[in-house]
Amino acid sequence: MFETAEIGRRIDRDTYHRALPRLRRDLIDLQEQLQRAHFPVIVLLEGVDNAVKGELINTLGNWLDSRAVDFTAFGAKTDEERSRPRFWRYWRGLPAAGRIGVFHSSWYSGTLIQRALHDLPADAFEHHMHRINALEALLSREGALLLKFWLHMSAERQRAYFEALARDPRGRWLTSELDRRLNEQHEQACAAGEWAIHLTDHASAPWIVVEAQDSAYRNLTVGHILRDGLQQRLDVGPEVPPQTPVPAADPVSPTDTVLQHLDLRQHLDKPEYRRHKRALGRSLTAATWRAHHHGVSLVVVLEGWDAAGKGGAIRRLLQGIDARLARVIQVGPPSDEERAHPYLWRFWRHLPRDGHVTIYDRSWYGRVLVERVRGLTPEARWREAYAEINDFEDQLIAHGTALVKCFLHIDADEQLRRFRARQRTPHKRHKLTDEDWEDRALRPDYEKAVHEMVTHTSTGQSPWHLIAANDKRHARVEVMRHVLDTLQQRLGPEARP
Amino acid sequence: MFETAEIGRRIDRDTYHRALPRLRRDLIDLQEQLQRAHFPVIVLLEGVDNAVKGELINTLGNWLDSRAVDFTAFGAKTDEERSRPRFWRYWRGLPAAGRIGVFHSSWYSGTLIQRALHDLPADAFEHHMHRINALEALLSREGALLLKFWLHMSAERQRAYFEALARDPRGRWLTSELDRRLNEQHEQACAAGEWAIHLTDHASAPWIVVEAQDSAYRNLTVGHILRDGLQQRLDVGPEVPPQTPVPAADPVSPTDTVLQHLDLRQHLDKPEYRRHKRALGRSLTAATWRAHHHGVSLVVVLEGWDAAGKGGAIRRLLQGIDARLARVIQVGPPSDEERAHPYLWRFWRHLPRDGHVTIYDRSWYGRVLVERVRGLTPEARWREAYAEINDFEDQLIAHGTALVKCFLHIDADEQLRRFRARQRTPHKRHKLTDEDWEDRALRPDYEKAVHEMVTHTSTGQSPWHLIAANDKRHARVEVMRHVLDTLQQRLGPEARP
Repeated sequence: MFETAEIGRRIDRDTYHRALPRLRRDLIDLQEQLQRAHFPVIVLLEGVDNAVKGELINTLGNWLDSRAVDFTAFGAKTDEERSRPRFWRYWRGLPAAGRIGVFHSSWYSGTLIQRALHDLPADAFEHHMHRINALEALLSREGALLLKFWLHMSAERQRAYFEALARDPRGRWLTSELDRRLNEQHEQACAAGEWAIHLTDHASAPWIVVEAQDSAYRNLTVGHILRDGLQQRLDVGPEVPPQTPVPAADPVSPTDTVLQHLDLRQHLDKPEYRRHKRALGRSLTAATWRAHHHGVSLVVVLEGWDAAGKGGAIRRLLQGIDARLARVIQVGPPSDEERAHPYLWRFWRHLPRDGHVTIYDRSWYGRVLVERVRGLTPEARWREAYAEINDFEDQLIAHGTALVKCFLHIDADEQLRRFRARQRTPHKRHKLTDEDWEDRALRPDYEKAVHEMVTHTSTGQSPWHLIAANDKRHARVEVMRHVLDTLQQRLGPEARP
Repeated sequence: MFETAEIGRRIDRDTYHRALPRLRRDLIDLQEQLQRAHFPVIVLLEGVDNAVKGELINTLGNWLDSRAVDFTAFGAKTDEERSRPRFWRYWRGLPAAGRIGVFHSSWYSGTLIQRALHDLPADAFEHHMHRINALEALLSREGALLLKFWLHMSAERQRAYFEALARDPRGRWLTSELDRRLNEQHEQACAAGEWAIHLTDHASAPWIVVEAQDSAYRNLTVGHILRDGLQQRLDVGPEVPPQTPVPAADPVSPTDTVLQHLDLRQHLDKPEYRRHKRALGRSLTAATWRAHHHGVSLVVVLEGWDAAGKGGAIRRLLQGIDARLARVIQVGPPSDEERAHPYLWRFWRHLPRDGHVTIYDRSWYGRVLVERVRGLTPEARWREAYAEINDFEDQLIAHGTALVKCFLHIDADEQLRRFRARQRTPHKRHKLTDEDWEDRALRPDYEKAVHEMVTHTSTGQSPWHLIAANDKRHARVEVMRHVLDTLQQRLGPEARP
């Protein structure tokens, strides 16, 4: 694979300086257009050592308008990063729409290094590459332009380069112990790179291998590809064509969904309710503190019809969880910073640290519910979200998070009763909006969407709990029970003191 | 001070339940109004142990609309928090406008504990309280409603309460080792609290001492005060009356400012420039890496006229700083999340971690420059910003950050030449906006504002460097020199290997 990048290509000084003014002007022009377009550009640099990447980045820093470019390096993880799923730091570092993010190291780096230096097992390596494929596919579907550069140097060139750096007084800053070790293991590093490229080279996120020894050739090549890629993407216009075929919809009749098989007569009387609530609350307190001490995080997703009692269920749940540990994220319209990122970004940013709890009052499932039913997102995009969401939740679970998903179900009559009651109760009136009435009219579509959501995203490791909520007491206790069960299962039996 | 909170006030069950519906309705109504008003509510809870606070917070959680309230606890610092100035975590946790933030522990807690248990010296304690006064004054000037509750229990009551908890199976979760120690040192804890209240009790951020043993009395009192405080603040309307008298403006004539004493003929020829730039760049590389290894952060503020060459100076500076260490923050119009917080929030959020560099391309000084000149902020507010900014910078320096502030000065003729050149150069044309021409017309006002900014915010520990920038080469080298000098001074002489 890298033979084509060891043929000694160079560009002489004159040619370089003749090409430069045009390239720089183009890049600045395109950056200006990019700021009005609604997508981000992500440039990954992998391959050579830090010194070469540093030179290239300085050059790009000179060429680009510094107002709309971020240079990001992912070094040692902070404890806030360590205590969340692995990709959290990358989501956190994604450039906003209209900006270019140049990643000095990326989601490839750690795994490549582990493979080159520490014999990371093949399946772990491949697994990580599949995660990357999922992430990059999502980013590209969300409109991002991804350019992945592999900057290559032959073993001899790299060695010579290192020896030259060793004589430079700045050398000790520009290269690290890690660089030296990777240089010694050049063959393994290249093998890991080849394999990574092999597994992750897609039309929507292509690898570009660049011969790196001659700085003029390297800079100009990267610059030209960045320019041409940006130009092409801007020419496409605001609409990203659907890159995935739309799968056939499930043949669901809105009158025969999984919701209709739920027995809505389930209920609890007051004394029973109080007894259960108290017992579950105490167990929850113990379990969440135990989780805290074991560094296990908990994510609770609450979905359901308007007026199904999500708020009330959350309040009862919180009575069992110390306020120091829990956070409720109310999912409403996104802020402009959220809108400038892929849709999962706003959920990633609120993931709890190890030992903490985030309750999402509505969630990423909005993508396949409200956004689907109200036509806010094209079918190809929300259909793809099933896989995107599954991948996201897999990452939570792989990190060790306990994940609980509850859908509170009430029938249309009960909803109407509650809407009317809200209208009559002054301090509840604000909860009822025109949109709620509109959504009510769209109920058959929503039922179908819920049914398909369950089909596509209820798995053994993260099942959907459909909860009969015509009786609020029953629903609240059920939510507490599912949260408690999931958490206890995740924690295993408590050691006897 | 706490005698008034040891008289055994209680509310009987019936009274409590009669008062509740009205209170809850009012709170929900007010929260709804709050969401349309443009200010945040900050509720601090201090005094009693975690178990009592936890009960109160659960009650508030039941009463308030969970969609617009955040309960925040500041526990052990994360390393991201430790590696930034002390108040960074509190800025990070501030509620946005329209929301209520209930702080389970706050900027008081750590210092109170240290004083009660570890004999924190009096001057350190007082110093911290003065910092708090500055923060709370700023928040209140920015429109925040601050309610600080001191929940008090007498020594005997607290002891009895603890013994009861010890018999409760949940007790071991609800109280910590720290609570037990504070309980044992009840007298010292109260003394520290009294002193803190004494130093920080202001009309704009009042302390409310509440007798805490009877839960009905405690909950209802806090609830009523929250309600009444919110109601009063909403009645005032969107405009916060200026709480500080406007000091007399400096008698500055725009034709005799500090800028006019700068010799704009200073220049460098090309060979000199190249020599200096190379030498300074190398030293900068070494110094920034040394700072990285010593955990010293660097903040560079660049201000100056439009077209004064800030971007170019930053690019030259970055040639000496590894891309992994540095970040440029381009300060433009705030995002909606930024607009929903006090103006300094957007600068706090980008402060570098220890060992890293943030370059602000324009900065918090916009408050006393563009916002002043264009009348975007009332005089009482921007005048107060001098003290707010000084306090902010003091905190950076107290944390150990190296802070460099440069103002690039060019005369009006040079600016016009550069504007015209920009118009002629295609890839620079985008840099020139209508606002730049408008600002040019406001130049006398800006000169005055710069003069006053230097008067009020150039101090021995964080001086303003006014840099003659008619010659770009001179200016770039001067910026590099000031950054290098400040950093080297901060680091001290390098140990000989």
